[in-house]
Amino acid sequence: MSILQAKPLRLSTSQPDFEAAFQARLHWSADTDAEIEQRVADILADVQQRGDAAVLEYTARFDGLQVGGMAELELKQDELKAAFDSLPEVQKQALQAASARVRSYHEAQKRASGQSWSYRDADGTLLGQKVTPLDRVGIYVPGGKAAYPSSVLMNAIPAHVAGVEDIIMVVPTPRGERNALVLAAAYVAGVSRAFTIGGAQAVAALAYGTDTIPKVDKITGPGNAYVASAKRRVFGTVGIDMIAGPSEILVLADGSTPAEWVAMDLFSQAEHDELAQSILLCPDAAYIDEVQAAIDRLLPEMPRAEIISKSLNGRGALIQTASMEEACAISNRIAPEHLEVSSREPHRWEPLLKHAGAIFLGAYTSESLGDYCAGPNHVLPTSGTARFSSPLGVYDFQKRSSIIKVSEQGAQELGRIASVLAHGEGLQGHARAAEMRLKD
Amino acid sequence: MSILQAKPLRLSTSQPDFEAAFQARLHWSADTDAEIEQRVADILADVQQRGDAAVLEYTARFDGLQVGGMAELELKQDELKAAFDSLPEVQKQALQAASARVRSYHEAQKRASGQSWSYRDADGTLLGQKVTPLDRVGIYVPGGKAAYPSSVLMNAIPAHVAGVEDIIMVVPTPRGERNALVLAAAYVAGVSRAFTIGGAQAVAALAYGTDTIPKVDKITGPGNAYVASAKRRVFGTVGIDMIAGPSEILVLADGSTPAEWVAMDLFSQAEHDELAQSILLCPDAAYIDEVQAAIDRLLPEMPRAEIISKSLNGRGALIQTASMEEACAISNRIAPEHLEVSSREPHRWEPLLKHAGAIFLGAYTSESLGDYCAGPNHVLPTSGTARFSSPLGVYDFQKRSSIIKVSEQGAQELGRIASVLAHGEGLQGHARAAEMRLKD
Repeated sequence: MSILQAKPLRLSTSQPDFEAAFQARLHWSADTDAEIEQRVADILADVQQRGDAAVLEYTARFDGLQVGGMAELELKQDELKAAFDSLPEVQKQALQAASARVRSYHEAQKRASGQSWSYRDADGTLLGQKVTPLDRVGIYVPGGKAAYPSSVLMNAIPAHVAGVEDIIMVVPTPRGERNALVLAAAYVAGVSRAFTIGGAQAVAALAYGTDTIPKVDKITGPGNAYVASAKRRVFGTVGIDMIAGPSEILVLADGSTPAEWVAMDLFSQAEHDELAQSILLCPDAAYIDEVQAAIDRLLPEMPRAEIISKSLNGRGALIQTASMEEACAISNRIAPEHLEVSSREPHRWEPLLKHAGAIFLGAYTSESLGDYCAGPNHVLPTSGTARFSSPLGVYDFQKRSSIIKVSEQGAQELGRIASVLAHGEGLQGHARAAEMRLKD
Repeated sequence: MSILQAKPLRLSTSQPDFEAAFQARLHWSADTDAEIEQRVADILADVQQRGDAAVLEYTARFDGLQVGGMAELELKQDELKAAFDSLPEVQKQALQAASARVRSYHEAQKRASGQSWSYRDADGTLLGQKVTPLDRVGIYVPGGKAAYPSSVLMNAIPAHVAGVEDIIMVVPTPRGERNALVLAAAYVAGVSRAFTIGGAQAVAALAYGTDTIPKVDKITGPGNAYVASAKRRVFGTVGIDMIAGPSEILVLADGSTPAEWVAMDLFSQAEHDELAQSILLCPDAAYIDEVQAAIDRLLPEMPRAEIISKSLNGRGALIQTASMEEACAISNRIAPEHLEVSSREPHRWEPLLKHAGAIFLGAYTSESLGDYCAGPNHVLPTSGTARFSSPLGVYDFQKRSSIIKVSEQGAQELGRIASVLAHGEGLQGHARAAEMRLKD
């Protein structure tokens, strides 16, 4: 094997062709593959029609998992507990500590923004909103190579905190291969039921229900192109979270953090996936050189050096800006999933940052601490969707109902307004319903 | 014309075939039309590629609106104001009163659940969430027959309250026909810019941007099958609100409300659309007879009697239940868009109601008051999606960023946990990034 190199594209905002080069590097297309689309549509229709029989067939075909019946595809609670019990003590403790911190953050989130509220007008009319949990949700957990127990915690715990009673996990186990950490995480997070199914067939089973798999109200969690396409198609029948693109990190650096820390933070994103994107924005050219030197030094030590190298060479960038202010403005254009403010004065820059999934302030806040155990959710909007969407949270597992109780007196004032507007829209039934409540 | 009749299906939960009849009546399929899908895909691709030129062509073709250039498709602020000025005083006052009440409700909503929050751990680690408005949103307002000024208020005001700076309205004006109330509502609600375009071409222009139409971050508002399909397709490039199905009302009645009021409330939903659904649930057979008699008596007076009759005959139902408790349980299965609790004791039943877009409590709270001016939003989840989604609100025009600042001390504890879990997932870059922050 030749010696691996990782040379992120070096840019400066002062170069004349910066804009074009910057746009080209950011470009990522979520274009869907027509063949995948058609296969997913067929699988969904088939599972909707034939239920368990179709799920069994696809699981045998795609996961190489032959079983005698659906009962064998369920992971029972004692199997989840046994997986937890089988772990080394240090892993047990880490899972439990991470779980406790994630739970406590999401409890604070629920207290801050997930409570029912109401107020009364002077005439006694009551207005408000009632916040209630979803009844039942499905959590998709990828299997095989990219099996992440931390994702089980990040999806199941906010649902739990929201008050969801039934949390149904699906996780494919190709050729029967089970990941003990994933099962243990399901135990720690308090998953209600778990099935070893995956792909579009698992999404279909959760969305439509089968004799064995309960129909859910919402499906969350990451997956491959088939899973993403299936989630997009069942949207409306059930709720879904965002469709995730490749993971990204943006580091805003003022040069005060050890260059090796920043280099490793860029690696920690790049090692996910060849399409992952790691970008450094910094006004200090010499510091950018130091980070590149640290990359060169550290890369050979990394077990996933090949993926890191492909990701940084293909999609990485080290961008010299005129100032930290300009770096913040560029960050807002990117709207990154993960945004590290690796600065001596993170609170000076934070107010300038408008769009990001999660903002990591100060040199000690490596993205990886947030990924596992700081408490906030690691399911974050990618590909610039932080412009309009939010981290997965308790609010994704709650819904709101408006509450209106108009008093007899209130109906007099409101009735007159509604009558005028309803007649203006040609909806006389609406007008009459309001007028009937008037006293004169 | 023969004499119109409106006979909603009469059911009782005690009849042996209730379940099948109930399911059949509820059934509504959002199945998409392959031809519409393909035409919409083509329009989106064309507008993405050719921009303004394509928008002009489709507007000429579909809306019969021939103009010399894009500038003529913009409604200037003085045109919006002129439309308002042209209204009779009573309509001006009604629009302003409705706007003030909708604004005040959404301001309460923002105070209750749309604020940034944070807390500190004992070791000084800061955790929280920053809530910020979207930069720019697009509001789709249907034109022609179903042009509803109230929808302009209900979409634009929450965006305004959230702090969105640019609110771009699109409203088709077939053959140049403008609705003065719609334009006036845009003036009252404070829309930033408005364009007389509609259909899939308007959704495409907002999602991708053209030389003239600014690219937005999210598109909300109702529309026909083309608009719904286009919104579904651009989801991910921009945010969207829910895809709306036919409107529905469910009335839970204990027999204490005048039967004519309930009949008119059922009409006020049925008059929207032949596919609209009006259902009464009541334990009192004699009262159901009274409501049917009121329907028979009132129907001939209604200008929209034909639509009401088709809707009630085709999709309406009067269902006798064993008790109010059973009525509440059935309501939860339906998860209606609008839920009237027409009872002497609405607060006794409200806690039993888990899923609904909006809950209208007591005899004086006709749905139509909520539609126009009570304050809560009238954009509500339809077709059972209240199981997992919420009324349009300030939260739809805000997004959240997690905030994490790990202290040096916090990095010691968190780093050890993260390191164990990252090694467990085979992500050594993540582990090293955490370990580098450890002091030993």
